[in-house]
Amino acid sequence: MRINKKKYTTIWLDKDNIKIIDQTKLPFEVVEETLTTTEDFFTAIKDMKVRGAPLIGITAAFGLAMSLKINGCNSNLKKTYLKLLSARPTAVNLKWAMDIIMHEIQFAPQKNRFDLAIKKAIDLMNDDIKKCKKIGEVGFKLIQEKFEKKKAPINILTHCNAGWLATVDWGTALSPIFLASRRKIPLHIWVDETRPRNQGALLTAWELKNENIAYTIIVDNAGGHLMQQGKVDLCLVGSDRTAMNGDVCNKIGTYLKAIAAHQNKVPFYVALPKSTIDKKLAKGVNMIEIEHRDANELTDLNIYKNKKFEKNRIYFDSKNVFNPAFDVTPSRYITALITEEGIIKANKKEIKNIF
Amino acid sequence: MRINKKKYTTIWLDKDNIKIIDQTKLPFEVVEETLTTTEDFFTAIKDMKVRGAPLIGITAAFGLAMSLKINGCNSNLKKTYLKLLSARPTAVNLKWAMDIIMHEIQFAPQKNRFDLAIKKAIDLMNDDIKKCKKIGEVGFKLIQEKFEKKKAPINILTHCNAGWLATVDWGTALSPIFLASRRKIPLHIWVDETRPRNQGALLTAWELKNENIAYTIIVDNAGGHLMQQGKVDLCLVGSDRTAMNGDVCNKIGTYLKAIAAHQNKVPFYVALPKSTIDKKLAKGVNMIEIEHRDANELTDLNIYKNKKFEKNRIYFDSKNVFNPAFDVTPSRYITALITEEGIIKANKKEIKNIF
Repeated sequence: MRINKKKYTTIWLDKDNIKIIDQTKLPFEVVEETLTTTEDFFTAIKDMKVRGAPLIGITAAFGLAMSLKINGCNSNLKKTYLKLLSARPTAVNLKWAMDIIMHEIQFAPQKNRFDLAIKKAIDLMNDDIKKCKKIGEVGFKLIQEKFEKKKAPINILTHCNAGWLATVDWGTALSPIFLASRRKIPLHIWVDETRPRNQGALLTAWELKNENIAYTIIVDNAGGHLMQQGKVDLCLVGSDRTAMNGDVCNKIGTYLKAIAAHQNKVPFYVALPKSTIDKKLAKGVNMIEIEHRDANELTDLNIYKNKKFEKNRIYFDSKNVFNPAFDVTPSRYITALITEEGIIKANKKEIKNIF
Repeated sequence: MRINKKKYTTIWLDKDNIKIIDQTKLPFEVVEETLTTTEDFFTAIKDMKVRGAPLIGITAAFGLAMSLKINGCNSNLKKTYLKLLSARPTAVNLKWAMDIIMHEIQFAPQKNRFDLAIKKAIDLMNDDIKKCKKIGEVGFKLIQEKFEKKKAPINILTHCNAGWLATVDWGTALSPIFLASRRKIPLHIWVDETRPRNQGALLTAWELKNENIAYTIIVDNAGGHLMQQGKVDLCLVGSDRTAMNGDVCNKIGTYLKAIAAHQNKVPFYVALPKSTIDKKLAKGVNMIEIEHRDANELTDLNIYKNKKFEKNRIYFDSKNVFNPAFDVTPSRYITALITEEGIIKANKKEIKNIF
């Protein structure tokens, strides 16, 4: 997608180096960073320089591959795998992507491993772009149908950032939105601020601005009120992990919007690549380890001022804080899943069908 | 209640002056301010130096009274009334309290008006304390019953600030909590941060700290997840305006918590003095004017640093923002209302009964 009209992806190869955009500095600064060591990749994922389930997976795949350039032996491979896996416990794509790399190289001699792994990581990266574009096409039809009925701008509420910054390109939840906008369907997006890290107000709003799509930032508290007032035509969010019964684990607060949508008969869609579906997970509620992140994500705020970032304590209390990063939305609140294979119901039968 | 062990109310008479605590500086600085002119009272209410429906009402009553000290004529009275009424459109107590003053003085000669009005405002202030204490007693029994069954600390989720700072003393939703704590019932309070003004993390947390009550600050997004996990025994919030059918207008985000409580079978209580009940309002949903506040409440943050407050822009965009201050929770999601007259169901019959 575009940043100031220049085309970007979130991760790319620059000669022999892996480069990313440091998303913790967005939208104030567009800083490219080179990832070399396993520590670099681990930190990029853990500190959310890259974030979003699909992008986390691709980054980990490159991290695993790059570690083989230095040392292709089994013990290094295993160590790197476990280290990167520990960076974020909830997103299933992290494991999914690294397992694909592992499978690719498991019987290969050490000297060939790097070449095989980096080739596979590049494939995964290109596949991610294709899948996200496909999700866009599938979801576009939904929006188009809505527009043909309503014949007025479609109001879509989204939570957190499931745009191109969460993937390699295009995004998941925002991919249909980008496509619909480029195809001239009038849209207006309600952007949840998404505390504590404010990815909605910082990243989603900025992505929409770069694509010239109308949007309004709201606090996370406001979505229910808007739905009650009939100001939301549909909700569209991403997923960090999806259970086989259709339960969706996504950014904390997604669940509240889903039940508000349910109560107000607003369709609630989740856009996701198949790679976020955890085939070993029969159901999601109470079965997914929810990452608890540091209190200071809530009590401190990174403020960009005079071309510098400065961390500011915003509350008097930085101790009595609980900061879960995700919640699980039971499938009964989800109208449908938008996948690269088409639109399916959030249930076991239809999910099994796409595998 | 206590600030650093010193007893305070939120508004008081100091000789002939009305004094308040400027709540926009709490909890970092405890600054007393003297209100003299109508403009002082208007600004104090509009800029939320005083906030919370009951306290807004008392402040307006004093504002109206004090204006009569300067000029007791009808035209000044009417001008002041309308000016103060326009400071916050949603809280019904503003009108309620000023109407009582108006009623008190309507047939009195101009020279007596100030004395009558100030005496009545003082009565209202003292009544507010009594009513809030009574709400505490009524709600205390609920918490006590819960504790006798559970025999473990009671986890209560609250939204915004409905503590003593929202009233003259004791508070509404927090009054039963203060009382239960003083009577040695073990409690733990989940404090919603309450964006955009963060009254939960700033005011409620600080009130609880001053009373030595265990609490944990969470983002507004987290409450649904906690209820789904069984970590909330009951929700307890205040009300800015209550309709005769039991619909409750309260701080934006209350509605989302109420439906989450409903879905997870967590009791959802609203504590309120009768004065927040709008007898002219048959139902609340779609019938209450919701105050839309300035975008910069969301995009800017007042940070206290080096003993100074500094306003900081936190987002790149300060224009595409919508900031409704309240939402309306339909009565069907409310387990009961806790009033100074006892616990009643949120329906027309039981509400009519207490008048």
